[in-house]
Amino acid sequence: MKSFNIQFTDKTLQESVQAKLDNLNKPKGSLGRLEELAMQVCLIQQTLNPSLAHPCHLLLGGDHGIEREGVSVSPREVTWQQMVNFTRGGGGVNMFCRQHNFHLRIVDMGVDYDLSGVKGIIDQKIARGTRDFLYEPAMTEEEFDRAIQIGSDLVDSCAAEGCRVLSLGEMGIGNTSPSSIWMSIFGDIPLKDCIGAGAGLNNDGIRHKYEVLSEALQKYQATIPQPSAINPLIYFGGFEMIAAIGSMLRAAELHIIILIDGFIMTACALAAIRLHPATQDYMIFTHCGDESGHQQMLNIVGANPLLHLGLRLGEGTGALCAFPIIDSAVRMMNEMNNFNDAKITKYF
Amino acid sequence: MKSFNIQFTDKTLQESVQAKLDNLNKPKGSLGRLEELAMQVCLIQQTLNPSLAHPCHLLLGGDHGIEREGVSVSPREVTWQQMVNFTRGGGGVNMFCRQHNFHLRIVDMGVDYDLSGVKGIIDQKIARGTRDFLYEPAMTEEEFDRAIQIGSDLVDSCAAEGCRVLSLGEMGIGNTSPSSIWMSIFGDIPLKDCIGAGAGLNNDGIRHKYEVLSEALQKYQATIPQPSAINPLIYFGGFEMIAAIGSMLRAAELHIIILIDGFIMTACALAAIRLHPATQDYMIFTHCGDESGHQQMLNIVGANPLLHLGLRLGEGTGALCAFPIIDSAVRMMNEMNNFNDAKITKYF
Repeated sequence: MKSFNIQFTDKTLQESVQAKLDNLNKPKGSLGRLEELAMQVCLIQQTLNPSLAHPCHLLLGGDHGIEREGVSVSPREVTWQQMVNFTRGGGGVNMFCRQHNFHLRIVDMGVDYDLSGVKGIIDQKIARGTRDFLYEPAMTEEEFDRAIQIGSDLVDSCAAEGCRVLSLGEMGIGNTSPSSIWMSIFGDIPLKDCIGAGAGLNNDGIRHKYEVLSEALQKYQATIPQPSAINPLIYFGGFEMIAAIGSMLRAAELHIIILIDGFIMTACALAAIRLHPATQDYMIFTHCGDESGHQQMLNIVGANPLLHLGLRLGEGTGALCAFPIIDSAVRMMNEMNNFNDAKITKYF
Repeated sequence: MKSFNIQFTDKTLQESVQAKLDNLNKPKGSLGRLEELAMQVCLIQQTLNPSLAHPCHLLLGGDHGIEREGVSVSPREVTWQQMVNFTRGGGGVNMFCRQHNFHLRIVDMGVDYDLSGVKGIIDQKIARGTRDFLYEPAMTEEEFDRAIQIGSDLVDSCAAEGCRVLSLGEMGIGNTSPSSIWMSIFGDIPLKDCIGAGAGLNNDGIRHKYEVLSEALQKYQATIPQPSAINPLIYFGGFEMIAAIGSMLRAAELHIIILIDGFIMTACALAAIRLHPATQDYMIFTHCGDESGHQQMLNIVGANPLLHLGLRLGEGTGALCAFPIIDSAVRMMNEMNNFNDAKITKYF
């Protein structure tokens, strides 16, 4: 796997950021979470005047072998159909990208359909879906390395355009399954607490999903005696998920702000943090979704997400919806008067 | 007091809104709170294609006689200083109005300073602050009627410009005090549970505030034997708060969406609902602030606010920060493809 040089943000700037915050014309601390966000963004960019220039959204698509085991309510074909739909502008992700001025890249990382002729989709297909991890590892180590590299390269192309903030989303029927297993492994949480309804399973469906994933996890544990952080990624991952991890690592290396969306992207964030703990300094956890276990997964990394809107659409929609809150925090640092400018009696 | 003809929204449209929502290309219900917001906005406007045209923000300023009793950490002069500061664009409310394209009106309802020469402030001053309600009613019935009328007229001027969504904010040192008392009276909640730190009181300060407000409330109860919903408004209200109530009532009458901000505006909303219960149908509760008791006040009307950002700045900043979420809900109704357009296998 490509190596990354990711540093924790330099905290020596903290004092001057706090001094600037405390002298803005408002009661100390009265802008709450916005002040915390401003602090984080200033530390990421090492400036008192941060910027959210050229926001980019990566929509990564891929299919999953495990879908063959009936773990999802939606059929596999929805992945490619939605990918095509996104090129026409009518998906959830499209609306919110337009609303918040995100530059959208739609990337085929491994969709089980020939999308090579579809205008607006970047073709990075590694294979037509992963293998079924109930029987064998989802991908080879070489495929894993490629997916990481592709994710990293995508961020380079965003950075070349001036991107300072990156949002990530996914389209991949079945991808709550690997996410649940990663959560269980990386968070050391019983598998049954990591499994939810996905896009709409009923109780029987959830029970079946648990049985399938439980069997797969047992086989994995029997096969890989001394697992590293990379093993579960190769064994269970989706190509779109590994690419997302590569993107997160590269974004952190480049001091780009990373917006973490729902259950699946949080699982990828967790994996990225296990690989390089400093990555977390660059991540803003934007939304706690409806998927059971998402809050518990956020707890593993001590994240307190910005929004609780009960979204469970994926595509990065939660991250996009949270963007204006971060924008408000940045505007506060750049536009709000301080007590001297405003000629106001400083509140205690 | 001016009379208002406020109708509950017509729920017969509910079924067709739900049908449209369920046929958008996403798993049923997967856009969570956005779907609830879309429903509410569609019912308010009685359409399947709602609009947030010409958003307006009313920033209403006024001083409070009760401030003389040392119930606030900030001195009274901050009210006028901030009002002037808002005209220069450097306040919290200014940043967020610019960010979300709100037309801002800054209105002097009763600031204790001569602002008549200040460009950018609409002069509707009723008096230089209310009277001290520890000793006498804060205003006369005639002043109350005028404040309601002014608030209502402000909404008419917004509506004349095509406004479909109204946000309200306040600037008035001391105005958590009347808010706490209204919460206690209208919610039938012990006064001690209604009092918080305001802009930053310490424990001694909060105890003193409780003693002052408790004495004032006892005197009121002894003076007004059979109180109506209007009595506590006249006795304790601020001019900016009464104007806000007038604005809310008129906005509801005109089927304009009303964004309810933090502790003080929630107290005004509660009063408006007590006067005309149907007003609540037009209100979106945007933010649960840091002020102790705010969540409990929201519970009185069964409101589940959109954001929890720990803001306690006032000025309507929480409502403004929540606006893009409502915008997302409206875009979903207007821009998202349905399953037929998208040619996607409908998920279960």
